[in-house]
Amino acid sequence: MENLKFSPLFWPVKFKKDTLYVLDETLLPQRLEYLKVNNYRDASRLIRNMKTRAVGQVLLVLYIFMLIFKRNKGKKSLAGILSRATDSLNNSRPTLSFRYLTDMVTAWFRQGYDLDKRILDFLDMLKNKRIEQAKKASLLLKNKDIILTHCNVSGLLPLTGEFCRRQRKDISFFVTETRPYLQGSRLTAWELHSSGFKVTVISDNMVAQVMKEGLIDKVVVGADNLARNGDIANKIGTYQIALLADHFNIPFYVFCPPPSPADTGEDIKIEIRPDKELLRFGSKLIAPAGVKGYYPAFDITPRELISKHINLDV
Amino acid sequence: MENLKFSPLFWPVKFKKDTLYVLDETLLPQRLEYLKVNNYRDASRLIRNMKTRAVGQVLLVLYIFMLIFKRNKGKKSLAGILSRATDSLNNSRPTLSFRYLTDMVTAWFRQGYDLDKRILDFLDMLKNKRIEQAKKASLLLKNKDIILTHCNVSGLLPLTGEFCRRQRKDISFFVTETRPYLQGSRLTAWELHSSGFKVTVISDNMVAQVMKEGLIDKVVVGADNLARNGDIANKIGTYQIALLADHFNIPFYVFCPPPSPADTGEDIKIEIRPDKELLRFGSKLIAPAGVKGYYPAFDITPRELISKHINLDV
Repeated sequence: MENLKFSPLFWPVKFKKDTLYVLDETLLPQRLEYLKVNNYRDASRLIRNMKTRAVGQVLLVLYIFMLIFKRNKGKKSLAGILSRATDSLNNSRPTLSFRYLTDMVTAWFRQGYDLDKRILDFLDMLKNKRIEQAKKASLLLKNKDIILTHCNVSGLLPLTGEFCRRQRKDISFFVTETRPYLQGSRLTAWELHSSGFKVTVISDNMVAQVMKEGLIDKVVVGADNLARNGDIANKIGTYQIALLADHFNIPFYVFCPPPSPADTGEDIKIEIRPDKELLRFGSKLIAPAGVKGYYPAFDITPRELISKHINLDV
Repeated sequence: MENLKFSPLFWPVKFKKDTLYVLDETLLPQRLEYLKVNNYRDASRLIRNMKTRAVGQVLLVLYIFMLIFKRNKGKKSLAGILSRATDSLNNSRPTLSFRYLTDMVTAWFRQGYDLDKRILDFLDMLKNKRIEQAKKASLLLKNKDIILTHCNVSGLLPLTGEFCRRQRKDISFFVTETRPYLQGSRLTAWELHSSGFKVTVISDNMVAQVMKEGLIDKVVVGADNLARNGDIANKIGTYQIALLADHFNIPFYVFCPPPSPADTGEDIKIEIRPDKELLRFGSKLIAPAGVKGYYPAFDITPRELISKHINLDV
């Protein structure tokens, strides 16, 4: 696949001269800045603080194991460090399972692979599979389609749009702002607009209205967790968009990660985040002092509401 | 009805010594401040800028006619000023029809009433009917009910809660923050918390999740416009909450104003507001420069989704 242009969100971790750099997604769209990551504790903290998300977290987990291996190759302490890193990373976010990654890396290590080479090969394969995933998505779309999306799918949508262009199909986007972190207005609108696509931001309470007005042809979202039965966990708000899409007979497509160990959505634990993240806007308190908030960060969309899973075949 | 305590939002316009003061709802919950209103142009501007909303706009329209009449009683120019005020006020917000008010006042004027006295009598009656409306709502609620609401219903919910207390029923609230103006977190959470009710703020994309978790017993919202067939227009987001309540079999109650001239919801024009109100938070741009937004300020909830209209019998 030649001359493809990627959003910085498609591959938000860089490895240069034995040092890791992670795109700070909380500063976008105002600033495009990378944070230096020295060790697995840094990585866990960045994940917990949502400095990076989605594919950025997957990449960070893999790259950090590569870094640990390179630094400690041959040392007696290596197995212990890898094990502590595994625990730390797996405990950083409840809803997102990194276990399939950490199990995979642990297995490679036990089998005697050189983790640095093995992980780089895996990342290379992952990149190609993600490109294929965007291509598969493009084949589901028609010329003039208007796509509603929510939160951010780590560069897959601009890439999908680029494949559409090569197929001479012109598509455009509506993006929910995605409170409270505004990944929709800050990240998705930014990467789509930067790639030359028409994008319109709405607030999360306008979904039914734009669907009723006939402005939406298809919904395309990502997933943070895919259960074995096809249920998904994704950013809070995805579930109600799926219910509304069902009501208005609008196809609902999901970019999925590899399946997690969860049998169904019921087995996926929903992360409840601190309510101050909801009650403040930047540093400004937007609710009266003393009022509580409730902030489930994800929700489960049952497979019945999903028209098609766009799988990542790794 | 003795010893009732009212939220400042229940009656947000004050008339003192021939001067009008309107509660500036955009400064809440940080500051409780009133704006001076000198003439109908001031009033139309405050309405257009949403410094006051809902019942505050109704009160402002009526009080401003009272003020015009008092100032110009007996003058030849009076009819002309009243007519210009009527046009200005009716054009200030597309979705909100003040015509039933301006028609009423015009009819009184033509019939030779002293508008100052007639309007004060009407406002007195309106206040009592609103108190009755809150009491009717309280009879629909049970002990331990958790109510989800959206936007702000101008002091009717704390009053409903007070009637529940007198009936020895303990109720609590979930409030959507109601982007982009945050009337839910700023106004409703504030007035309910100030009145001693338990209130939890969620963002607009969490509605399906809290319903699915069984956290919501009833939905109670207001309406800015009631069509003759029972359809309502209310703050954007109401429609999707009604669809979700229907999906989860949760009763959906609406505090209604008197019917407007609209036959059905289809006849109510939806106001499209400037997208900068959606794309900025205060003075901070939250979307990338150049990205457009779409901001329909209201939506229509069809009568089929409304379990009960709590009418204002004026």
